[in-house]
Parts: sequence; structure tokens; C-alpha cells
Amino acid sequence: MELIEALRATLGRDHVLTGADAKRYGREWTGLYSWTPRAVLRPADTAEVSACMRLAHEAGVAVVPVSGNTGLAGGTTAEGVLMLSLERMNSIREIRPAARIAIVEAGVVLSKLHEAVDARNLAFPLFFGARGSAMIGGNLSTNAGGSNVLRYGNTRALCLGLEVVLADGRVMDLMSELHKDNSGLDLKDLFIGAEGTLGIITAAVLKLVPKPRAHATAMVAAPALPAALDLLNRLQEATGGAVEAFEFMPRVYMQRLAAVHPDWRPAFEEIPEVSILIEVGATAPRDVTPGPDGTVPVVALLQDTLAEMLEQGLITDAVVAASEAQRQEMWARREAAAEITLSRHPLVNCDIAVPLDQVATFLERIHARLPAIDPGAETLTVSHLGDGNLHFTVYPTSADAPLADKITETVEDVVAELRGSFSAEHGIGVSKLATMSRRKDPVALDVMRAVKAALDPKNILNPGKLIP
Amino acid sequence: MELIEALRATLGRDHVLTGADAKRYGREWTGLYSWTPRAVLRPADTAEVSACMRLAHEAGVAVVPVSGNTGLAGGTTAEGVLMLSLERMNSIREIRPAARIAIVEAGVVLSKLHEAVDARNLAFPLFFGARGSAMIGGNLSTNAGGSNVLRYGNTRALCLGLEVVLADGRVMDLMSELHKDNSGLDLKDLFIGAEGTLGIITAAVLKLVPKPRAHATAMVAAPALPAALDLLNRLQEATGGAVEAFEFMPRVYMQRLAAVHPDWRPAFEEIPEVSILIEVGATAPRDVTPGPDGTVPVVALLQDTLAEMLEQGLITDAVVAASEAQRQEMWARREAAAEITLSRHPLVNCDIAVPLDQVATFLERIHARLPAIDPGAETLTVSHLGDGNLHFTVYPTSADAPLADKITETVEDVVAELRGSFSAEHGIGVSKLATMSRRKDPVALDVMRAVKAALDPKNILNPGKLIP
Repeated sequence: MELIEALRATLGRDHVLTGADAKRYGREWTGLYSWTPRAVLRPADTAEVSACMRLAHEAGVAVVPVSGNTGLAGGTTAEGVLMLSLERMNSIREIRPAARIAIVEAGVVLSKLHEAVDARNLAFPLFFGARGSAMIGGNLSTNAGGSNVLRYGNTRALCLGLEVVLADGRVMDLMSELHKDNSGLDLKDLFIGAEGTLGIITAAVLKLVPKPRAHATAMVAAPALPAALDLLNRLQEATGGAVEAFEFMPRVYMQRLAAVHPDWRPAFEEIPEVSILIEVGATAPRDVTPGPDGTVPVVALLQDTLAEMLEQGLITDAVVAASEAQRQEMWARREAAAEITLSRHPLVNCDIAVPLDQVATFLERIHARLPAIDPGAETLTVSHLGDGNLHFTVYPTSADAPLADKITETVEDVVAELRGSFSAEHGIGVSKLATMSRRKDPVALDVMRAVKAALDPKNILNPGKLIP
Repeated sequence: MELIEALRATLGRDHVLTGADAKRYGREWTGLYSWTPRAVLRPADTAEVSACMRLAHEAGVAVVPVSGNTGLAGGTTAEGVLMLSLERMNSIREIRPAARIAIVEAGVVLSKLHEAVDARNLAFPLFFGARGSAMIGGNLSTNAGGSNVLRYGNTRALCLGLEVVLADGRVMDLMSELHKDNSGLDLKDLFIGAEGTLGIITAAVLKLVPKPRAHATAMVAAPALPAALDLLNRLQEATGGAVEAFEFMPRVYMQRLAAVHPDWRPAFEEIPEVSILIEVGATAPRDVTPGPDGTVPVVALLQDTLAEMLEQGLITDAVVAASEAQRQEMWARREAAAEITLSRHPLVNCDIAVPLDQVATFLERIHARLPAIDPGAETLTVSHLGDGNLHFTVYPTSADAPLADKITETVEDVVAELRGSFSAEHGIGVSKLATMSRRKDPVALDVMRAVKAALDPKNILNPGKLIP
């Protein structure tokens, strides 16, 4: 216990949690993973993170960084080893509206940052269900995606600079605020999405965008996916690329939503084959200034596009949100996804991406092949359709592990045929290590191992994650 | 010469150039660097690149990759070692309009790709003076910038996937076509901008964007930089972020232009303190469909914004291009930058970035300090102002090397005070190695060295470049 005593001397006794105090860190919120950490460290600043890593490095003891712990891939499992929580490093150091940047610590909760920049008429356009507890450090370490990637890119695209503590405690300052900076290897993007295996991200310079001053939001009913993609392309053209979200919920999703939340108002009287939640964000005066009849131009643009498509019989119904309350109601249906997905067990959860025009093909092929594996299996799909990203869940008829593996491999087969990715936005953690071994280019895996060994030769940073 | 014979057996005698045949590869186009390569290899495909690297790796002989050779930082100097030219790998493998991607080999000339996608009503929005000879491999290896970064990002942001040959000849397949792909460490962005020190990029999946169907282009005269930034912000707001280029040419630039090209029509009768070339690109029907009077709406939007600012006295003059010929004339003034800059010697050329709102401060501070170092020195500035990127050149009164170093260090001092970068888009090559040593975070330098040693343990890939 010499190491624990040294850590207590560094952080103070209150910030080295063990036993019952550490218990709440030993579980992923889905319940799929649980573990007992040796201790949980709660440093207050970068210097303390650095001191912790120096001690752990000397002792050769593994450290698993954690922030909001809202992951889905077992990325923070830490049986018998140290966890390092960034939760106390929760300061928004600076918001600079003129430069459109925020400088934040890793433990800032995403929705706190949303609120802080909203007050300056700016937005940090990273948006997903867990935003009320997810933290910036985890967002960066997993290169989080979400509903606004279509317009603004994933977390990597929203970050200009990083501060990282390395395995041996050295602090690397990459806190650039610049949009152009070709000064050596791109280390920033290497540490983003590394799931804490190369270093611990302690702070970041984040890009902000003008806060949309008006939204046009609608639920659209379509007979099939090609019509939905046609809608996306028409709207992108009409708005000059201002579509912020394009979310696909098939019939089975809406049926499950109705079962889980029977009191919620349905989007349409009859559930259509394809329901799309679409949102356009506008900042330009000509888009947001209401006309003489009170109509907001960007809303009129959406209405016109939908009316045209209805007339042509390409879509079957559409409801445009007439108030912020109606908009929130539409989003609530989409944001119930995690709850709906996890309300049944056993499940096999796949987070995949295919080229945009292959989403329908993926669904056809997988539904054609599943019956041969498990005739009684049911599925659930919800999709960031604008990115070709599907959260595809299979509910097998038994909790048999080989059956789950067979299902996973079949999904992977179809994804590979369509040149897709077996991990779109949730990352690898421990849940997809076997898939990485099977499916990732073997030379790329070797290069990842070489980089990992070079930067963490003692293999103490989140060992056994990400890289098989 | 055993190695050379083995390479000839692999590539054919015609594609291993030595002596006089290799001479044209031994010079950077600026004339600042020249060298004599041992031989120049011209592989036809990825398999041949791989075979070359296997042979070179076994022999422990250095290889310097080259494509269009339009760099400015000595990144392809190769005294007495092998060069590997990608010029024969010049096939555009696929253009997929629906998916908005192009799959290309490293030796494709940038303007050839422009032409090929233009025919499909798409654009590859990487745009700079050397586009007629620069090739995609070099664009990627240097993370090229240019005039459209403001809207579309640099080359890194325009690339979805890569194929790379490693130091030992292994081929790494990262040819993803996806916008979301969290499957392990981000190796793509590590190899982009690595200047050929980690691997040889042989092919890439590139993003395409809808081709603007109308441009609004103007030359604007302003009394000072803050007014120019005000113009940028107003136009970004009015257009919803569709400003594609915002290029700053100060009085001294326009004076030099008039001296070098006395026959060219001047932008304004009297040269103003600040000349701005601004361009907005539009795709939406409501922006590009001419009104009853023939005016294109996006042009009217630009005219209205300029008229308002003229009325308020914030700018002093403006000319909106009324034809494609006038637009080309405006761009020619900006694209003469390399010619104008290099028409005098000796020179100290700096490619720097500072936060957008610090450009004026940079210019004030550096002009206040230069006289103490070299009272007779003159300067030239041309700037991608929308990115905070300045190409700042000092013409010292003597070709004295210590004087040039002193000037460089003074520029770096001011850049560091303003939290800028000493290398915005031209990269490091050999020209900025000393600067990297002095100015880059030492921990980041150590991490770069560790990554380099892990991926190229024999140090045969473009040795002595990028990483000091």
C-alpha cells in the first residue's frame, strides 16, 4: 500500500477513494460491465494528474482514466487497478467569443459548456443523449459523435488544441488556438479517440460556432429510405448545407417507443415505415427574421420542400414544429433510444457505419441472414442517417454467448461487404477487441501497437483497451 | 550498386533514373535548395512502391518521397540518397458523385482532379497557386492549406481514407469512405502532414463538395484591418458561413505587384492601405437563380453588405466582379504572390498563423522591432486573413546568415507572444528545423521522436526532415 499512501500524500486523503467510496466508479451505466477498482484518484489539476502518473509509472501500476463514465464499450473497466477521475477538473477556463473558442478542463460536463456558451450566443455543436453527465475528457478520448456530426463533424473536428499527461507524468502542451498549424506530426488527433491508452487529456481548446437563431424542425413520414435520402439532398441544396440533424427511426422503433412510453403523443396517427427527424439551423438574418405574416424564412423553406415532396408522393406525411415545446417533443422521441434499446435483454448492440447510400442495403441483407442464425431474433434500428451511422440492435432468443458472437460476426460480414465500419462512434473499449482483431487491417493494428509501445512502454495507461 | 540493380530489376531500367536523368528532381522550384540524388525511382503502382521500400529497408538506405515538388520548406532535399517519385501513379481510380468521394492515387495533379470533378458538378475545394503541378500525395503529406481553408478546412479535413506504404514495405489499408469511423487510433491524421517521414502515401479517399453554381467576388478597399474583419463577420452572418476566401493584400503588396506587372490593371486608382479579395460560393437555388433584373441573389447579398459598409464609412471602395473574366483578374493579383515574393533577394520567408484578431497586432509589433535589427529591411505581407495566416517576408539589407536568423527569431518571438504558430501551412521540411527545436513544446518533440522511431526504426524515410 506504499503507492496508495504516496497518492494520498499527493492528493489528500479525501481524493484517493477505496472500498465502498470507490464503488460507484465500478460500473458502466448500462450495467453490462462492473469491476472493483483498487482505488479512485481525484486530482484537482494538471499538476496533480502528472504527480499521480509519475507515481503509478514508477510502480508500474495501471491507471484507467474516467470522466463522465457514459461510455458503451467497457472503456473504463478497471478491475484491481487505479482509476483516475477528471471530475474535479471542471473549470471552463475561458470563453472568447471573438475568437470563437472555449478553453476547458476535461471534467466539464458537456451540457454545462452548452449553457455557458449559449449565454454568449454561441454553440458547442456536440449533441447526444448523455450530454447531462458526459464530460469533455471522455468526449475527446472517444471522439464522440452524436446528432450534429452531419453539419459540424465529430469531436475531433471541434477541437483545436489539447493538454495531455503522458504515461510517465510529463505534460504535453498542444493548446493551439489556431485553425492552421503545420508544426510537426499531428499529435492532437492521435490522442483524440485513443480512449486513454496513450495519455490523459486534461484540457482542450474547443471550437464554437454561432448559435442558430432559428431552427426548422420536422417529423417526416416516408415509405422507404431512398425517399428520405432524396429529402436530405433537396434540403441540403435548398439551405446551402444547413441541415444539422437527420435521424431515422423505422417502424419497429416507433412501436417500441409506444410500448415503453404509452402516454407519449405519437408522431403520426399510423406509424409509417420510415420516420425522419430533421432539423435545420439558421443564423443569417434573411433566414431568421420573420416575414410580414410572422413566418420564419428557414421554416418556410422546410415547409416548401416538404410540400413539394408530399405533392410528388415521395413522402406521405410531415409535421413541422410550431413551437419550442413541439420541437422538444420531437427530440424526446429520438433521445429515448438508449432507454428503449436497453429495456430488453439479452441484446447484441452494434454501432456501425456504411456509405450513406448503402443503409437500406445493409438492413435488407442483415434481415435476410439473421433468420438462419436465430429465427426468433428481433431487431431495433435507430440511425444518424445523414452520416450513414446505424445503432443496430439484435435481441436473440437466448443469452447464449456463441449465438451472440455469431450474430456479431454476421453483422460485421455485411458491414465489410459494404465497405463500412464496425465501430462508427461508440469506440472499441473492451467490447469490440475481438472485432478489431478480426476486421481491422493487420498492418494498421501493428502500427497501433508500435505507437502504443513507444508512448506507454510499461503499458500502464488503460491497458487492454482499444488495441487487441 | 547492388541495390540499384535490384531496383532496376523491380521497376525496369527506365524507371530508375540516375545521373543527368535524375537532375530535374534535384532542385526545389524556388531555387533555395538543390541536391544530387543517388537515384530517382518511379514506381507504377503500390506494389512497386512496396517492393522499393523492402529493398531500401533491407539495405538501410534512405528514401525521400516526392510528387509535384512544389514545396517551400526543403522537404524533398535528398543529397546522395534515393528519391521515390509518385508521378506515374496518376490515376483517378473512381469518382462517386452520390457518395461525394474521389479515390485517387498520390501522383494525380491537383488541377487534374479539379477538372475531373468539375465535370460532375462537384468540387475538391483545395485551392492554391501551384495547383497546376502540385500532386495529391504532396498535398496530403504537407497537409496543404490555401485559399479555401476558411470554408472547407485544410487537406486533412478533406481526406477520409489513405493507403500508405511503411518503411519496411508493408502496405497499410486505411481507405475508409466513411464520415464516422472510430475503429482504433487515428492513423490517417498521423500520416497526413508527416512529410513522408512515417510512410509513403500512395492513394487516398477524398471528400468532394457541391460545386458552387455562383460566385460573388469582390475587391474591397479598407482603411485598416479591423474594418476588414468586420466585413468578414458581416458576410459570414449574411451568408450563413459561405465565405470561401478572404485574402488580404496590404499597400506594399499592391505596390510591388504594380512594379512586377506594370501592364496589369490596378484594383483601385489609388492603392488603399488594405485590399481584400473576398469570394462567396453558393449552391442553393435561392442564391444562384437570377432575379427578374438578372441579378444573382448571392451577388446582391455581397453588394448590399458592401453598400452598407461604404455608407457607414467603414470601407472606402469596392468592386464586385461582373464577369468570370473580372473574377479571374482579381484572383490573378492574389496568385502573383509567389512570383512577387521571390522576385527580390535576399529574403527571409515566414509562414505564420496568429489568432484572427491578432493579425494587426503582429504587423505592428514586428514593424516596431525590425528597425533595431536591420534599419533598411523592407517587408512584404500577403495573408489568408480569414484563417489568421500570414505569408510575411523580410528583405534584409544583406545576405548575412546571422542577420537572417535574428530576423526569424524576432518574428517567432512576436508569434509566440500572440500564441501563434511558426508554421501555418508550408510545413517544416529542413527550413524550420531550428525553429521546431526552439519553439515547439519539448514534450511534443519527444513524442514525435518516439513515434518516428517506432514506425521507422532504421530512419530511412525522409530522414532529417520535420522532426529535429
